[in-house]
Amino acid sequence: MRNEELTELARQLRVDSVRAADAAGSGHPTSSMSAADLAAVLLAHHLRYDFAAPENPANDRLVFSKGHASPLLYSLYKAAGAIDDEELLTFRKRGSRLEGHPTPRLPWVDVATGSLGQGLPVGVGMALGGKYLDRLPYRVWVLSGDSEMAEGSVWEAVEHAAFEKLANLKLIIDVNRLGQRGPTRHQHDLDAYARRLRAFGWHTVEVDGHDVAAVDKALTEAVEVDERPTAVIAATRKGRGVAAVEDREGKHGKPLPDAEAAIEELGGPRFVTVRVQPPPAAGARRDRDLGPLELPRFETGTEEATRTAYGRALAALGSARGDVVALDAEVGDSTRTEYFGKEHPDRYLEFYIAEQQLVAGAVGLQTCGWVPYASTFAAFLTRAHDFVRMAAVSRAGINLVGSHAGVSIGEDGPSQMGLEDLAMLRSVHGSTVLYPCDANQTARLVAAMADLDGVRYLRTSRGETPVIYGPDEEFPIGGSKVLRGGVGDKATIVAAGVTVHEALRAADALAADGIPVRVVDLYSVKPVDVDTLNDAAGATGCVLTVEDHRPEGGIGDAVAEAFSDGRPAPRLARLAVRDMPLSATPEEQLHAAGIDAESIAAAVKLLVERIVAH
Amino acid sequence: MRNEELTELARQLRVDSVRAADAAGSGHPTSSMSAADLAAVLLAHHLRYDFAAPENPANDRLVFSKGHASPLLYSLYKAAGAIDDEELLTFRKRGSRLEGHPTPRLPWVDVATGSLGQGLPVGVGMALGGKYLDRLPYRVWVLSGDSEMAEGSVWEAVEHAAFEKLANLKLIIDVNRLGQRGPTRHQHDLDAYARRLRAFGWHTVEVDGHDVAAVDKALTEAVEVDERPTAVIAATRKGRGVAAVEDREGKHGKPLPDAEAAIEELGGPRFVTVRVQPPPAAGARRDRDLGPLELPRFETGTEEATRTAYGRALAALGSARGDVVALDAEVGDSTRTEYFGKEHPDRYLEFYIAEQQLVAGAVGLQTCGWVPYASTFAAFLTRAHDFVRMAAVSRAGINLVGSHAGVSIGEDGPSQMGLEDLAMLRSVHGSTVLYPCDANQTARLVAAMADLDGVRYLRTSRGETPVIYGPDEEFPIGGSKVLRGGVGDKATIVAAGVTVHEALRAADALAADGIPVRVVDLYSVKPVDVDTLNDAAGATGCVLTVEDHRPEGGIGDAVAEAFSDGRPAPRLARLAVRDMPLSATPEEQLHAAGIDAESIAAAVKLLVERIVAH
Repeated sequence: MRNEELTELARQLRVDSVRAADAAGSGHPTSSMSAADLAAVLLAHHLRYDFAAPENPANDRLVFSKGHASPLLYSLYKAAGAIDDEELLTFRKRGSRLEGHPTPRLPWVDVATGSLGQGLPVGVGMALGGKYLDRLPYRVWVLSGDSEMAEGSVWEAVEHAAFEKLANLKLIIDVNRLGQRGPTRHQHDLDAYARRLRAFGWHTVEVDGHDVAAVDKALTEAVEVDERPTAVIAATRKGRGVAAVEDREGKHGKPLPDAEAAIEELGGPRFVTVRVQPPPAAGARRDRDLGPLELPRFETGTEEATRTAYGRALAALGSARGDVVALDAEVGDSTRTEYFGKEHPDRYLEFYIAEQQLVAGAVGLQTCGWVPYASTFAAFLTRAHDFVRMAAVSRAGINLVGSHAGVSIGEDGPSQMGLEDLAMLRSVHGSTVLYPCDANQTARLVAAMADLDGVRYLRTSRGETPVIYGPDEEFPIGGSKVLRGGVGDKATIVAAGVTVHEALRAADALAADGIPVRVVDLYSVKPVDVDTLNDAAGATGCVLTVEDHRPEGGIGDAVAEAFSDGRPAPRLARLAVRDMPLSATPEEQLHAAGIDAESIAAAVKLLVERIVAH
Repeated sequence: MRNEELTELARQLRVDSVRAADAAGSGHPTSSMSAADLAAVLLAHHLRYDFAAPENPANDRLVFSKGHASPLLYSLYKAAGAIDDEELLTFRKRGSRLEGHPTPRLPWVDVATGSLGQGLPVGVGMALGGKYLDRLPYRVWVLSGDSEMAEGSVWEAVEHAAFEKLANLKLIIDVNRLGQRGPTRHQHDLDAYARRLRAFGWHTVEVDGHDVAAVDKALTEAVEVDERPTAVIAATRKGRGVAAVEDREGKHGKPLPDAEAAIEELGGPRFVTVRVQPPPAAGARRDRDLGPLELPRFETGTEEATRTAYGRALAALGSARGDVVALDAEVGDSTRTEYFGKEHPDRYLEFYIAEQQLVAGAVGLQTCGWVPYASTFAAFLTRAHDFVRMAAVSRAGINLVGSHAGVSIGEDGPSQMGLEDLAMLRSVHGSTVLYPCDANQTARLVAAMADLDGVRYLRTSRGETPVIYGPDEEFPIGGSKVLRGGVGDKATIVAAGVTVHEALRAADALAADGIPVRVVDLYSVKPVDVDTLNDAAGATGCVLTVEDHRPEGGIGDAVAEAFSDGRPAPRLARLAVRDMPLSATPEEQLHAAGIDAESIAAAVKLLVERIVAH
């Protein structure tokens, strides 16, 4: 396109952004208008994308990290002929796929955005996939706002992209000077951003973001840089083109006060369409079916840590499936993810201590068809909570594995103990939460979680636990195992992970005291096995849950929820970690927290005697 | 001290670190040994601290961000005469206050560390307090590892410290080249760190971290820089001084293989003590009791958003109390925190879009006696989950306020909706979780939360809700309000926030249909009002919870937990947000999620008819 045509296109994008927000009665037109020239030049000259075949793996990726500029994105889709004007005006209405912030309900959106500072880290995942795994020539374009450069997650991504020399990653920063509530830290000081990015090893280009010829030149330069990631840092004006809002404070996140006048000021509606350049032909994907799955087998009666079983099972899964990748946050020796790395170094990605980038990397990779397993200490997954939350909005299929769960890690103390992870992961929409107690169970669950939908979480333990299941036992998702039980059981103990073994010891002690009890291994914390719990409750009348986790949000809540279906419920009681742990041995920790065999047996006796348990 | 004495002191710190870890059978001696020379020079020549009076507000702050180097910290305490050798050797043992990672059980530790990348952001909070609020001349020394420089939270802090010109903040980076599982990204490339920090506006000094004279010079330079924060970037060797471990991989986080030989190689035990320089005398603190509290009063029957009531109440609280500070993450216009900012600009701190720094800032400020209220969208508090978790380990008293809770925000869509915040905040040890439904209730709770222990969370809503309580009504923490009820109630509806109003409408409709029900406003989600819930359950036999939150971890779980005390429980059912919301109006959202009055009434009818409710 000639520059005049580009300018026309940009004006159309502004007009359509104003129209969409006006029809919706809400939205962010001014944040769209600032980036319209950048988006016009990108769409017309640089993006390589087949809108008719969004699943084409060779397509460039376009991530609107400033997701609130969705009117601009949807206006781009209209200009590319992907949606029509009628659909554009359904923006933000019930039933429309043009949501307030973009989600993958639209086939051209790979990941949901709207929580700022996530687009670049997710783009790093996509770029890693293109460069190192799929070896495809696509480029990853990330449009970022200037405000969101304050998010630490952006700098995790900046660091990692430079370190991995992700020349296929192209960041465009729309420096429109104004955040939501006023000026940004650096306002129009483009060099403030450029200095920082260059210090991390990026190539930078500063440009007037409303000069289409200059933008075209900048994006061309970005495309040509092939040794390092590039950032095009563009000075723009929020609300550009409409004097009533341009570069003014207090105009964020609302329709223009007089849309009709604004559209006229912008020259009225236009009908420019763009023939977007298709991607180059992609070669066949690498074979992802490598051979039969041969999970490790552990002998019953021996002892093994579930984290170790996870590492070995993941390595085995990687030998069977070429689509499995493992992601580490500089703790692979502790989580045992390094076992995978030793066998499959080409599919092992090290993110160093940057948990947000770790999870974002997994989200980016799964958009490319990879099956990522991202691991760190369960406690440190909390660092990436917002990324996990947004992964659910993205309908992303990712595996998260948190090790060193609970007080049973021992001396390291509470900063290292995952005690809130079950609560966090259970609350994620559509998630699966698994918590194995032995090595064979772990191996089976590691394989089973690979192909589930949504966010899958596996919780592993640091210390060794007895192998109580045979290697051929099956563990369906949503199931549980009744490990002790018979006619005349007086109570049910529901446990998972390390507390299963404590529960079994308690059950044996109680049986010796003439109090037979049922023990349920609730390895699938979400979904939970409602039927087995109901059967047990019906048979025994009372249920005690015991968990190496806070009382809130974990196994106690999961079991209580199973009985929150309007039916008469059993008497319930729960043992959990109620105090702040101090340093002590694992055994001392379990006892101090009141979740060891002795505490369980005492609680069962109280419960059976119908005395309040806590 | 002469250089030779400093070297002796450093050797003693190494020996004591080795001895402590050896006695414990675990710990991180090699990570302590790398920083021993840095710590020795700091303690002997630069730290201004009265160990006999840790509460002295003029004391320097010392934050071991690399909390795993706790043996070094405790060895410092011994050298300063604060603890004796016998206590040193209780390291990591049950009952000892020398935990695996430092916590404020020790009077000289202001905040717990051990989750990496938190020390600098917390230090920023302390430095802001010193420079802008207390106007005290203390310095904040943060000892950081090199691995943790990969955490984005560090760069949020680096950016903010430079922007606020926190010359009282002195970062010492112990660049020992080795992370937990192998080399760091930048190994011994000190300039990689220096370039990045300088690009953000820091003063940097590179130094050989084992040359005590050079370290002394570097720290002197750091003290003298008075316009910007300074980082001393020190090349060190992990395990320094013991050939078997020095600069070797695989030696992280374990005692030395042969402690006796190592101690001999280090020259044996020493008995150096240091007279630490006391701080300069501090002036009197500013008056924090400014006048009587005059909370805003809202007229019943009018409508107001709880976020607005929060903003107004916080401003009023700030007028009454000089110790209240408000922290914003660039959304003060949305959260209404800006109302405080307009009345008390000197106590209003803008952190831009950096939620980890926001919460860390609050944690840092509360160590200085301030009462911080940190606010952002409830959804974006998930970004700071690990900081909130660690705040609990730090026994920090902070107020967090999350706005735009739930689907009732409307068109913006799920990325902006706080739907997991109750689960996250309930699971935090010792937390208080409040969720008001009207403006007067909000105002009272804003004031009441100020002086509680631990992490306090207030959840506010975007839209206007009817004022149903008078301005003089009281709302004790741990209480609830029975809004409808009498003899013959057939069911209990438990609601909070926006769903209270839906529940009241449902109750009225049900009453008209001849089904009287009780309605409980559960404004205190944690602690929960067990007695009132038990009374209601006893009277009605069944309880329906309804919440604008995920089914997991929120009000449904809180109520179920109240009935998990071993007693016979009522029949329970819950309404919550079970699907992924799309864009729609607030009313459409509540209906689509099945939490509006119509859905509640239908669910009650099912429950009363003893039919399974979901």
